[in-house]
Amino acid sequence: MSAILDAIETKKSKGELSEDLIREVVAGYTAGDVHDYQMASLLMAIFIRGMDYGETLALTRAMAESGKTYSFPECVDKHSTGGVGDKVSLTALPIVAACGAPVAKLSGRGLGATGGTVDKLESIPGFSCDLSEERFTRQVEEVGLAIIEAGELAPADKEIYALRDTTGTVDSLPLIGSSIVSKKAATGAGHLLYDVKRGSGAFMRTTEEARELADLLVRLSDDLGIGASALITAMDNPLGSAVGNALEVRESISLLKNEPVTDDLANEVSHIATRLLELKGIPESATAVEKALSSGSAYEKFEGFVSAQGGNREALENIPVSATVSEVKAPRDGYVAGFAAAGIGSAALALGAGRARKADKIDPGSGIELLVKPGDPLQEGQPVARLYGEREAERATHLVLKALEISAEPVDPPPAILDSL
Amino acid sequence: MSAILDAIETKKSKGELSEDLIREVVAGYTAGDVHDYQMASLLMAIFIRGMDYGETLALTRAMAESGKTYSFPECVDKHSTGGVGDKVSLTALPIVAACGAPVAKLSGRGLGATGGTVDKLESIPGFSCDLSEERFTRQVEEVGLAIIEAGELAPADKEIYALRDTTGTVDSLPLIGSSIVSKKAATGAGHLLYDVKRGSGAFMRTTEEARELADLLVRLSDDLGIGASALITAMDNPLGSAVGNALEVRESISLLKNEPVTDDLANEVSHIATRLLELKGIPESATAVEKALSSGSAYEKFEGFVSAQGGNREALENIPVSATVSEVKAPRDGYVAGFAAAGIGSAALALGAGRARKADKIDPGSGIELLVKPGDPLQEGQPVARLYGEREAERATHLVLKALEISAEPVDPPPAILDSL
Repeated sequence: MSAILDAIETKKSKGELSEDLIREVVAGYTAGDVHDYQMASLLMAIFIRGMDYGETLALTRAMAESGKTYSFPECVDKHSTGGVGDKVSLTALPIVAACGAPVAKLSGRGLGATGGTVDKLESIPGFSCDLSEERFTRQVEEVGLAIIEAGELAPADKEIYALRDTTGTVDSLPLIGSSIVSKKAATGAGHLLYDVKRGSGAFMRTTEEARELADLLVRLSDDLGIGASALITAMDNPLGSAVGNALEVRESISLLKNEPVTDDLANEVSHIATRLLELKGIPESATAVEKALSSGSAYEKFEGFVSAQGGNREALENIPVSATVSEVKAPRDGYVAGFAAAGIGSAALALGAGRARKADKIDPGSGIELLVKPGDPLQEGQPVARLYGEREAERATHLVLKALEISAEPVDPPPAILDSL
Repeated sequence: MSAILDAIETKKSKGELSEDLIREVVAGYTAGDVHDYQMASLLMAIFIRGMDYGETLALTRAMAESGKTYSFPECVDKHSTGGVGDKVSLTALPIVAACGAPVAKLSGRGLGATGGTVDKLESIPGFSCDLSEERFTRQVEEVGLAIIEAGELAPADKEIYALRDTTGTVDSLPLIGSSIVSKKAATGAGHLLYDVKRGSGAFMRTTEEARELADLLVRLSDDLGIGASALITAMDNPLGSAVGNALEVRESISLLKNEPVTDDLANEVSHIATRLLELKGIPESATAVEKALSSGSAYEKFEGFVSAQGGNREALENIPVSATVSEVKAPRDGYVAGFAAAGIGSAALALGAGRARKADKIDPGSGIELLVKPGDPLQEGQPVARLYGEREAERATHLVLKALEISAEPVDPPPAILDSL
């Protein structure tokens, strides 16, 4: 019997897949010998029957090794499960690089409402994530921070992920975990922090689910030789004020320049940067992070990084955003109870900040600036958000208004960090 | 959400598929809008979660109506789940036609070790199952018996069946039942007898499994307006002596001419013919069957049918078989305990009597004649089987010897009819 049929029979009858069998199936699928419909059948059997930890680790390893692999044992990296307005990579990574923890990051473009780091950075005029491997490695050594677009990383995961997306097999913990860790293992950073988002705007709806995923990510990473830990952070509301590529770079620059940003963003970035330094074994991490911001060394590191990747250092003072701007106003008095992250993400998508389909072109200058945060008092007619961009602005306005929850009673701002592993 | 994703979500979370949703998915798959990998995912979810009777009936109806449908409410038909040496259609149908029960049969070609009725009939020189619908209908009226190759019948079932074959989703009762009944419902006979084979050479290994399938087939058929019943028959040993297309036609002619054939075949054919006449409401069925054989009217009906479909009436006296013949001899004294049907099927396949792949060409004159049956005493060196055909004769000899079980003690011949619904 062929490996794929053997695997299907095993899994459908509640058996355990051996490491060899998993490796054969993944290799066969990558080589095109296993058909999509056969892999889809196996994925559904895995979805329903589950996989134990050993099977999940074997799948993770097989996918990680299905293409090119890198090795940066000295470097730190972070991975977020994805959120609206999440600009932590843009900010925490220059901070830790300024504190002596080198960063070699392989990143992706965004799909859906949450943008990718590559898209965000490329809204800086001249900036490119298309570096040769040699130049990338040299920049890591010389600047201490480099980010390239991950192309051929873990190709088996890429194909399996695309298949899961159209066959109802996305929301499976072992498949989610192996997908995330296989890519990170292929990028080869020695120290890794997972930021697992939980909430209405995230894949994991409850803290319990998020903790289960975080546990799995850390355990898989450790077994693949990566020193890892994880945070669980809230994603009911967008992080910070800006949602959209250029707008988020602007907000990140403000933070790196130690200018005021919203508390949720400032706290989360400091916390994550501190944890990354701890992973790397740098003493007095929290103080180091504070100093990097107050001394200007974090922003200098960012400037050096941008300029090394072809970005215009002067342009950082005024990243171009869309000239078509409108404001959304509060419909009544009260307090901001929330700005539903999923709704704001859809509104940003409608304005052109993201891709509904892979082939879509984004408008880097489009997006949303939130002018109020949960807990803030509101007066009818007060501007609550500024919309940038020409596409579907009317629909975006409706979506923002729908996302805004107003309470008649005062509201406490929600916590940003929910748990830490 | 698209119908297929909705169906996958429903089934994977143990829900029930509505009739409308099933209809939409089947129509989408037939039209090519639903991808193979999506259908494979749904089939695995159905395999593991099961389908209740209502869902199974809805799937059966949707597949039956996915292509051309026929209507022959006056006709009787039979369906066998497939066995080695199964020539009951070739014999019981001319008998019942001779007794006044018209037959309009849409049949298929064989795949694997068990031959198809179309392949068997086309070993008669000049015979063709490629009739126009008009000619087919006229022949049913004038001759009372016509058999055509079912081309575009239940195309959704055809595609789903091919997919199941390569995705580990074959052995699911609701999928097996809906596949069989959808094709029969599309052929439109008013009265239908299912011959569910049970044993080492059949899909259903135990009588219990066979009974469950038989129950489902009868219930689905009744609900689609077909008066149905079912038999469970043994398929541990090949039926009769001949295995292979022309050889089986020869044995069928002997039976229809009322010449001696093995007891298992004679009994099963009489039983099935009698049951078909009962379904049609013809009184004193058993006596009618006996008379049709002894009077020669059954053979006359067969001759008329063969000649109406272009077959050479004179050639019936001497159907050509392969001139390359060898004998297999008993390796020791004893009693025949069995001739494993699966092994004999593989041997016939090796000789050229069947197709391993759909595109393979069969050798109509090849096959095996068994010279002993279970219960017969054996002497070392006594011929037990005659092999016809040039392909892989040596391998076939080994397979036949491996299939032959010899007991030191006397053996009772096994029963042929195990249960009747």
